[in-house]
Amino acid sequence: MTERVLTGDRVTGKLHLGHYVGSLKNRVALQEQYDTYVLLADVQALTTHFDKPDLIRSHLREVALDYLAIGINPDRATIFVQSMIPEIAELTVLFSMFVTVNVLRHNPTVKSESKHSGLDDMYYGFLGYPVSQAADITFCKASIVPVGDDQLPHLELARKIVRRFNELYKPVLVEPRALISEMPRLVGTDGNAKMSKSLGNSIELDSTTEEIAYKIKRATTDPARIRKNDPGHPDVCPIYAYHRAFRSSEVSEIREGCEKGTISCAACKALITSALEQLIEPTRERRAYYAARPDVVDDILLSGTRRARGIARETMEEVREAMSLDYFG
Amino acid sequence: MTERVLTGDRVTGKLHLGHYVGSLKNRVALQEQYDTYVLLADVQALTTHFDKPDLIRSHLREVALDYLAIGINPDRATIFVQSMIPEIAELTVLFSMFVTVNVLRHNPTVKSESKHSGLDDMYYGFLGYPVSQAADITFCKASIVPVGDDQLPHLELARKIVRRFNELYKPVLVEPRALISEMPRLVGTDGNAKMSKSLGNSIELDSTTEEIAYKIKRATTDPARIRKNDPGHPDVCPIYAYHRAFRSSEVSEIREGCEKGTISCAACKALITSALEQLIEPTRERRAYYAARPDVVDDILLSGTRRARGIARETMEEVREAMSLDYFG
Repeated sequence: MTERVLTGDRVTGKLHLGHYVGSLKNRVALQEQYDTYVLLADVQALTTHFDKPDLIRSHLREVALDYLAIGINPDRATIFVQSMIPEIAELTVLFSMFVTVNVLRHNPTVKSESKHSGLDDMYYGFLGYPVSQAADITFCKASIVPVGDDQLPHLELARKIVRRFNELYKPVLVEPRALISEMPRLVGTDGNAKMSKSLGNSIELDSTTEEIAYKIKRATTDPARIRKNDPGHPDVCPIYAYHRAFRSSEVSEIREGCEKGTISCAACKALITSALEQLIEPTRERRAYYAARPDVVDDILLSGTRRARGIARETMEEVREAMSLDYFG
Repeated sequence: MTERVLTGDRVTGKLHLGHYVGSLKNRVALQEQYDTYVLLADVQALTTHFDKPDLIRSHLREVALDYLAIGINPDRATIFVQSMIPEIAELTVLFSMFVTVNVLRHNPTVKSESKHSGLDDMYYGFLGYPVSQAADITFCKASIVPVGDDQLPHLELARKIVRRFNELYKPVLVEPRALISEMPRLVGTDGNAKMSKSLGNSIELDSTTEEIAYKIKRATTDPARIRKNDPGHPDVCPIYAYHRAFRSSEVSEIREGCEKGTISCAACKALITSALEQLIEPTRERRAYYAARPDVVDDILLSGTRRARGIARETMEEVREAMSLDYFG
């Protein structure tokens, strides 16, 4: 049987090149090989955006459009809405019985994302984020979860929860393994280690030609390189990082030209601008296609969610039976 | 419209006279006046019994039999199974987004019940007990919750959660109010302030004539009263507490007889034994009737759960709409 992959995103904003490099490109490849489930994580978006439900609503559509635009194929992959799978909430509640506060608060992701607030000020749902992720993975019995290295501790906890459940009750849940993508993180246009919408250093997947050109034009380069002939340091330059990510076949020429001062920053930027335009153009077109057909998108999300729900029901039946909660046979 | 009452019990053991005095008697009266919902809280039983699912399974039936035996009328009241209402889990997850760890850990009930373990060692689900109770109350829009005074902080938090939800989204949830029962707590046969199965000082509602007699015979009395003629101190005697609870019309005679030393402990115990037998006998018979008819009990629980589920679905629809999670109209 084809193994199942679970991936997805919190729907807190449009997707950008960082997502493309870190996960989307990989997903488009994975769907050819695996039974790919793609989660629109609106409930998890609430952990930080509970007071902005309208934003989540609009982001859900945007992220769905991004998926379709980038090449997630709804005939191969199952795109589904988290809040429409009650079994995820049920599993979250059941798992929460045997996971201690201690394990959750020391989870590195929870820890780093909550550095501004102590345990006391944390929202209960935020603290339980890893439990809810374990429910996302297990309800559909995904055996593979593509993750960035920052998500590894979450996955490790999900594996522990599965082992604990299977040992306490019956071995009905599948222990997932991580598939670490090769290039998990893309630098921002300002040189910040992480491209992020909230840092204002991102290039969105639906950018216009002008937006791409403008953002690359304004992007930071090696500050030590003032004139064209100055030797550059590609490893500190975000533009070079983009060449590596999006023009990998020509990346050694770029490195040489930069280090020797034979290619100007402007010329280097022009090359990447055109490469990004080539990457984004078909995406932009597919996006426009789907954006103009909201009924088609609805159908895709509804049928994906229906499929996911079917599997969720089966898993919950097994879970109830394993836990002796199947009182009426 | 008739107001709705929510009550229920964690299914961690058979019910006893303490439950009768503290809540069951009251419920039997309430069902005449209100639309009464009675929750078999199996999921909440997992907070402390997650490693004993078979116990929960058998206790669920026992508690259901106790309800029917004591006079909860399935034609008037809705008896339902918590784990079969996924909407309770969904609401628990949604509410958990805006309740802080701080509020939960300082909830007096959570605090007192977790005195043996610090916050770190607490299970995540146990810490969230009050959130899950808020979900129990709100899913069926109960406006009245009969509680013992020890449960008041839980109810206060449920009220806060409702207010917060209604203020953040839309006013679709009903803020419940407490109905404090007159006699919330019954002393154990050993004189301990609380009758409790785990303390071994309880008289179960399905006790045989012999068990009642034996337990009353062995019960503690005023230790200062050695001979019949010694003046007794009824206020320290559990038997006197039982007279107050179950023979209230004759209680002043008992007090006088005890204080003046005109009634012996043995005679006093005989009176209460016979009163308890009178109380328990019809209960025991009704219990035997239902115990011999598991299909009838199944039907009662299934139809109650179906009714509760219908209301749960309606509430969740309103909740989704209020939170803008109703993506597809």
